[in-house]
Amino acid sequence: MIRLSRRPVLLLLAGILTGNICAAQESGSSAEPLQIRSQGSFFVGGHDIHSDTLSSTPTRAAAGTITVDQVYVRYQIPTNAGGNAVTFIHGCCLTGKTWETTPDGRMGWDEYFVRHGRSVYVIDQASRGRSAANPSAINRVKVGKTTPDQLPPIAAESHEEAWTVFRFGPEYPKAFPGLQFPLDAQAEFWKQMVPDWIESLPTPNPTVPALAELAERLNGTVLISHSQSGIYPFQAAALSTKGISGIVAIEPGACPAATSDLRPYAGMPILVLMGDYVDLSPRWVPRLKACREFVQAANAAGARAEVVLLPDVGFHGNSHMLMQDTNSLQVADWLLAWIDRHVEHR
Amino acid sequence: MIRLSRRPVLLLLAGILTGNICAAQESGSSAEPLQIRSQGSFFVGGHDIHSDTLSSTPTRAAAGTITVDQVYVRYQIPTNAGGNAVTFIHGCCLTGKTWETTPDGRMGWDEYFVRHGRSVYVIDQASRGRSAANPSAINRVKVGKTTPDQLPPIAAESHEEAWTVFRFGPEYPKAFPGLQFPLDAQAEFWKQMVPDWIESLPTPNPTVPALAELAERLNGTVLISHSQSGIYPFQAAALSTKGISGIVAIEPGACPAATSDLRPYAGMPILVLMGDYVDLSPRWVPRLKACREFVQAANAAGARAEVVLLPDVGFHGNSHMLMQDTNSLQVADWLLAWIDRHVEHR
Repeated sequence: MIRLSRRPVLLLLAGILTGNICAAQESGSSAEPLQIRSQGSFFVGGHDIHSDTLSSTPTRAAAGTITVDQVYVRYQIPTNAGGNAVTFIHGCCLTGKTWETTPDGRMGWDEYFVRHGRSVYVIDQASRGRSAANPSAINRVKVGKTTPDQLPPIAAESHEEAWTVFRFGPEYPKAFPGLQFPLDAQAEFWKQMVPDWIESLPTPNPTVPALAELAERLNGTVLISHSQSGIYPFQAAALSTKGISGIVAIEPGACPAATSDLRPYAGMPILVLMGDYVDLSPRWVPRLKACREFVQAANAAGARAEVVLLPDVGFHGNSHMLMQDTNSLQVADWLLAWIDRHVEHR
Repeated sequence: MIRLSRRPVLLLLAGILTGNICAAQESGSSAEPLQIRSQGSFFVGGHDIHSDTLSSTPTRAAAGTITVDQVYVRYQIPTNAGGNAVTFIHGCCLTGKTWETTPDGRMGWDEYFVRHGRSVYVIDQASRGRSAANPSAINRVKVGKTTPDQLPPIAAESHEEAWTVFRFGPEYPKAFPGLQFPLDAQAEFWKQMVPDWIESLPTPNPTVPALAELAERLNGTVLISHSQSGIYPFQAAALSTKGISGIVAIEPGACPAATSDLRPYAGMPILVLMGDYVDLSPRWVPRLKACREFVQAANAAGARAEVVLLPDVGFHGNSHMLMQDTNSLQVADWLLAWIDRHVEHR
């Protein structure tokens, strides 16, 4: 599966000579080589702190300086890049891996959007994945400087709990009829989950100013959030709309309150995108309701916002992890078209 | 820096028509598009456990199943892939980011090796980066089920301590004369560092069997370790040499004991590669000595091992982070040639 047989450069040459290379890229086919103009990774945000409990063992110094609250960003820019970049922001208990190869081994949205001419940036939220957490508060308890109740709350979400949150089914391990999530590959999916330090972090989450900084650096990006991170692009826009050309909130855990200051969203294209089975989930029904109220109020304040449920545009059976569902690339096509229509050609 | 101006596909076409594309790739120039046959990410290793302290707060269930000890792997396979894949394994307090864009914004070894026709796999060690840690032991203390001394040792290495470990200089913040590490960009480097759960993990580290599994899947890979992970490829080979075509230990924290069972290394190309200033570091002198003893003993047992200090092959001023030093791509050229000579054409 991983190592394919050699394919001669001649095929690429033939593709170019017959004018097919751009057509092949448009189709998102993995059969044609991916053409990358540049790629790499960097950090946004972050600041130095001093701690005297960096370690609890004699093998490493306890006192010193570390850098925290930075956000890791990985990017790819295709040779045919055009329009606004997209920035993918993962949700609870996950990392940027969310947007990469699906659990059943299909192409992730990170590559698919690049194949459709978008520059793609994928982050790891602060204190998650390749973005450092700060262990000082743990060591402070271990060495007796404070009490166990001062330990940071760090949670791992169980398979059983995630099952209903992610709307794989009404209860573990029952699946919704017609579910598009590749449950046969669920073992690979569970490996994507990581502990979540979010409840130990300040408000707004350090990811928020980092997103505002990133958007300014990119000078035009659509912030595409998922779940827990749903509120972050809105909070980033409240800090600075410079560089934020649109917001796509996929299955947001929260939207801004309808009664909050909605001026940052005036003129901004905003999409709240939900999968299927929402009405069957006591967790998601009120979240959707609150987002509908936000969208209505934001539009009254001049935003260009809408809520779309995938079943209403012809996609059925999508879970909360819709970027990994078996029809994920068809949903991506729909989203790419939405961005073209609402962000590029407004 | 991040978003470059458009470059027409015609340039690529012209490059191919004049036969320059392979030459351009050989030079590792970032000016030519990168041609990727396939890319993506997946996990190796991992197993399910039950815990009743996944969370310490009412917002998430405390009891349930999570998956731990898996290792995240990201890969790119160029269109002109040939020979053995390379697998990059980062060291202490870092993640796979080690091998990506350097702190001063130059191309990382991950891309450079791809541009030289190698399939490249980059991992995050178990319990680090995108490979999940298990927070149960922390929550167990927080909810009062056990005592603070049972907290896992989780350490962050300070800038000041890393300075000497990474041989940036004799003491913080003095630099060695002629140092190649890009100290002007050190703020970006410190952001790469993450807490290290290693002392809370079993022996061998779960990364070790994961590497053995990965090598078997790849059916031929050179395991390229760094620092703390130096011992892992050797331990993986002791589990199974199937798929391990060579071992490159860059600045290993440890080599196998010269008195240990060296049969797994019979016939295996092994390189221990060190930077400069080793003789000025009380930490590194004994490590190098022990690795020299291992190499001598391993060769007596049929290995094809050698120790190379970069100053002895013409590179001066290299730090412990030699894959990020300002001459990193020249060192990469040397390493690529070593792999060609010792692994491909042995």
